[in-house]
Amino acid sequence: MKERESPAVVHTDSIEWVNVGEGIRRQVLAYDPGLMIVRVDFKSGSVGAIHHHTHRQATYVARGSFEATIAGKTVTLKEGDSFFAAEDVPHGVVALENGTLIDTFTPAREDFVGSH
Amino acid sequence: MKERESPAVVHTDSIEWVNVGEGIRRQVLAYDPGLMIVRVDFKSGSVGAIHHHTHRQATYVARGSFEATIAGKTVTLKEGDSFFAAEDVPHGVVALENGTLIDTFTPAREDFVGSH
Repeated sequence: MKERESPAVVHTDSIEWVNVGEGIRRQVLAYDPGLMIVRVDFKSGSVGAIHHHTHRQATYVARGSFEATIAGKTVTLKEGDSFFAAEDVPHGVVALENGTLIDTFTPAREDFVGSH
Repeated sequence: MKERESPAVVHTDSIEWVNVGEGIRRQVLAYDPGLMIVRVDFKSGSVGAIHHHTHRQATYVARGSFEATIAGKTVTLKEGDSFFAAEDVPHGVVALENGTLIDTFTPAREDFVGSH
């Protein structure tokens, strides 16, 4: 079991990447129990399948472009765009090119840090 | 008074930038009362002065590099790095080159959306 909060400063070079699907890898960045930032890299064409969870999520497109589906509505997002998924709202993405999403959650995704 | 939550999808081209200091501008991205993402652009050399607030903050370096001071400790952060500032922890940055920070807050910074 990892600590329930990150150090105050998290250098990307010092933390692990976790493969979470075909062409998708994730780094858990700064967090405490109430707030977590997660960086997710996608190779072009990779699919973050539609899913939902009780955590509220706000996501920022840091690089690339994505087709995102939130609550059944599909939009194209480019760098600088963002979306919000409230509790239990289904959401998913398809990477239209290589790209990076910054996913933020409240509360933290304890399931991302408790099992490895 | 703006709404207390953003649309589910926020396109960067559709929302305003607010100048918040010499060489610093901010866009409020996706949010609800419990979670908010804010994009902050800095010109090289600009200073986000040390400050604190009751909101918990996690920040991601999306572009550029910064000298960040959190709770009196100063570090250099580059793209992909992040930091966490718990409630009332003093924090500030100096942009070492043109750059962008993604600031995330819980609860939302109502003061960023209530007054304009």
